[in-house]
Amino acid sequence: MMLFMPTIVFSERDCVKGHGNELALMGSKAMIVTGKQSSRINGSLSDVEAVLKEQNIPYIIFDEIEENPSVETVMKARQKGIEENVDFIIGIGGGSPLDASKAIALMIANPEKDESVLYESTPLSYIPVACIPTTCGTGSEVTPYAILTLHKQRTKKSISHKIYPTAAFIDGKYLHTASRANIVNTAVDALAHLVESYLNTNSNELNRIYSREGLMMWGSFKDKLLENKITEEDYNNLMHTSMIGGMAITHTGTSLPHGLSYMVTYELGVPHGKAVGMFLGGYVSVYKDKREAENVLKLLGFESCDKFQSYLKAILGEVTLPEGMMEKNADLILANKAKLKNYPFDITREEIMAMV
Amino acid sequence: MMLFMPTIVFSERDCVKGHGNELALMGSKAMIVTGKQSSRINGSLSDVEAVLKEQNIPYIIFDEIEENPSVETVMKARQKGIEENVDFIIGIGGGSPLDASKAIALMIANPEKDESVLYESTPLSYIPVACIPTTCGTGSEVTPYAILTLHKQRTKKSISHKIYPTAAFIDGKYLHTASRANIVNTAVDALAHLVESYLNTNSNELNRIYSREGLMMWGSFKDKLLENKITEEDYNNLMHTSMIGGMAITHTGTSLPHGLSYMVTYELGVPHGKAVGMFLGGYVSVYKDKREAENVLKLLGFESCDKFQSYLKAILGEVTLPEGMMEKNADLILANKAKLKNYPFDITREEIMAMV
Repeated sequence: MMLFMPTIVFSERDCVKGHGNELALMGSKAMIVTGKQSSRINGSLSDVEAVLKEQNIPYIIFDEIEENPSVETVMKARQKGIEENVDFIIGIGGGSPLDASKAIALMIANPEKDESVLYESTPLSYIPVACIPTTCGTGSEVTPYAILTLHKQRTKKSISHKIYPTAAFIDGKYLHTASRANIVNTAVDALAHLVESYLNTNSNELNRIYSREGLMMWGSFKDKLLENKITEEDYNNLMHTSMIGGMAITHTGTSLPHGLSYMVTYELGVPHGKAVGMFLGGYVSVYKDKREAENVLKLLGFESCDKFQSYLKAILGEVTLPEGMMEKNADLILANKAKLKNYPFDITREEIMAMV
Repeated sequence: MMLFMPTIVFSERDCVKGHGNELALMGSKAMIVTGKQSSRINGSLSDVEAVLKEQNIPYIIFDEIEENPSVETVMKARQKGIEENVDFIIGIGGGSPLDASKAIALMIANPEKDESVLYESTPLSYIPVACIPTTCGTGSEVTPYAILTLHKQRTKKSISHKIYPTAAFIDGKYLHTASRANIVNTAVDALAHLVESYLNTNSNELNRIYSREGLMMWGSFKDKLLENKITEEDYNNLMHTSMIGGMAITHTGTSLPHGLSYMVTYELGVPHGKAVGMFLGGYVSVYKDKREAENVLKLLGFESCDKFQSYLKAILGEVTLPEGMMEKNADLILANKAKLKNYPFDITREEIMAMV
C-alpha cells in the first residue's frame, strides 16, 4: 500500500490573491494555460494576472486549450513556452487546461524530445505546475494524470508520465458563472472518480480515506444538486469533493465507467462527466462484491442501486447510443488491459453491455 | 484552509525490504538514528541494515537516543554525522528517535549554526529523513514536528522548524515484540492526536478527512485493545491509525491535553501517551461545543463521555498527581499561548483543573 499526495492545496475565498507569494515563488516567468472563454468570465484569469503583476512575475497567456485537448495543442504551447523562456505553468480551468498544463510542463523541460515521449515510460523531468480549477469534476489539480486526445486513434488516453502539480488553489467562487449543466456534468465526473476508486482493484483501507470521505461529502449535496438549490457553501463542497476525488484516483486509477466513456465523448461529443455517468449506475449494479457496492450507496445516502440509477438519469438526462456502438465499446474495453485490471473480478461481455 | 502531506508512505508487510530501492535513492551515506534496544529486538534495525548492504549504501548507526530526547543528544549526533559525511537520516523507533532524526537532519545541513537555531524561526534547509515507526502513537513519520526536551526549562518543546520526512515505511510486524503497556500508551497518544485535531481551532472540513477517518479506525479496535485481543490485522490498523493521527495534527497541531502532559512526563516520568491520556476524557467533557464533542464520541463508538473516561482509566490505569502539581500545570498552560490558541474558546482555570 502506498500513499502519496505532494501537492500543496490552498482552499478559501480569494485564495489566489491570498497566496500570491506562494505562486510567485514557483518560478521567474509564467505561462498561463487556459481556454478561450470561461477563465475570463469567472474571474480566475484576472485574479491570476493581478497577482503576477503585484509580485512582478512576467507571464504569457496561452489560451488555445480546447475541450479534450490534443497532443497537437500541447506541442504548440510547448513551442511558445520555450520561445518565451517560461519556467513554470499556471493551469486555469476544467480538466482540459489542467491536464494540458502538465503535458506542456513536461515537454518544455525536455525541448530536445518530440511528442512521442508523452506515451513512453522513461521518466522525464518537468517544470513546476500550479493548478486553479474552475469546474468541480476533474480533480486534476491534485492528480498526476494528463489525458489527451489522440486523433489518430480516435480516443483519449492518459500520458505515461506522472506529473504532480506543485500547488492547487481552490475557490468555490469560480463556479458562480458556470451553467447548471456544467456543474452537474463535472460533479458526476467527481462522483465517478470516487465510486470507481472505492470499487477498484487498487482500493485499500489506506487510500479509501479519500474515496470514503468524498462519497460522504457528495451525499451531503446530492439533493440540492437535483433540486438546483446550490448554496455558497455547496460551491465550496463541490470543489472539495472534486479535489478529494482526484486524491482518490491518484491512488487507484479509474475503472470501467471511465474506460467506456471515452468513445462516447470522442464519437458523439457527449461531455466527459455525462458520458461517464451513463455507465456509473450500471457499474455499481454489476459490481460483483455486493457488500462493497452497498457501502458505496450507503456512504452516498441512496437506499438502493435503482434509486442511484434513477437519480443519475434525472440529473444527467438520457443519452441514446447509435446502434452497434455499445458492442464496439465493449470489444474495445475488453481489449484495454489497463482499465480492465482496475476491475477486481472477471467480467463478461454481457456484464459490460448491461452497464449502460 | 490548507492541505499538505508530502511524505511518501509505504505500508505493508516487509515494506523496508520491498522498497529498499526508494530508501537507497535518498542519498549516498546514511546515519541510522535509533535507541539502544527496541529496534534490535523488533527486527527493524536489521531490516534496514540488510537493505542498505544490498543497495551498497554505507551507513553509520547512532543508537543513543533516549526517551524524550534532549537537545544535547541531537548535537552529539550532528557532530558524528558531519564527521562521517552522511547525507541522509533513517530514523527507527518511537517518537523519540523519529523526532530527533528531524532535528539532527536540520543541524547537519547547517554545520556552521549552533543549537540555538532549533528554536529560531528563520527557515533552514535539512538533509532527507526516512522514518520507520516501531510504536503506534507518534505519527512522527508523517508530521513535520520534532519535540525535544529542554532541561534548562524542565519541559519538552517542539522545535521551530517544519521538517517533513521524505518517506515513511510502516510495518505492523514491528509491534509484535512491544509490551502491552507500550502499545496501549502509544495507541492513546494516537487517539489524543485525533481527538485534539478534531476539537481544535484549526480544524476544518478539509483536514477533518484525517481526524474523522482516524477516529473511526481507532473505534474499530478499541474493544480488542481493552480485552488484550489484538490480532495481526489490528497491528496494521494500530500503525495506520497512528500515522493518520500524525496527518491530522500536521494540519491542526495538538491542543490542551498535550500541553498539560509535558510537565507530568518531565516531573514524574509518566510515559507520553499515558500522560496525555490523563487529560483526554476531561478535554472532551469540558469542550464547549457539545455537538462537536459528541461527534468525536460517535466516531469512536462511545455512548457517552463517561464511558469514554472509564475506558481510558481501564486501559491506562490511574495516575495520582502530587499535591499542587495540577495548579502549577494550569498556570503554565494559561501562559502557553501556542497551546491555548488551539482551543477555540475561552477557558477558565477551573475548566483546566477539571480536565484531570
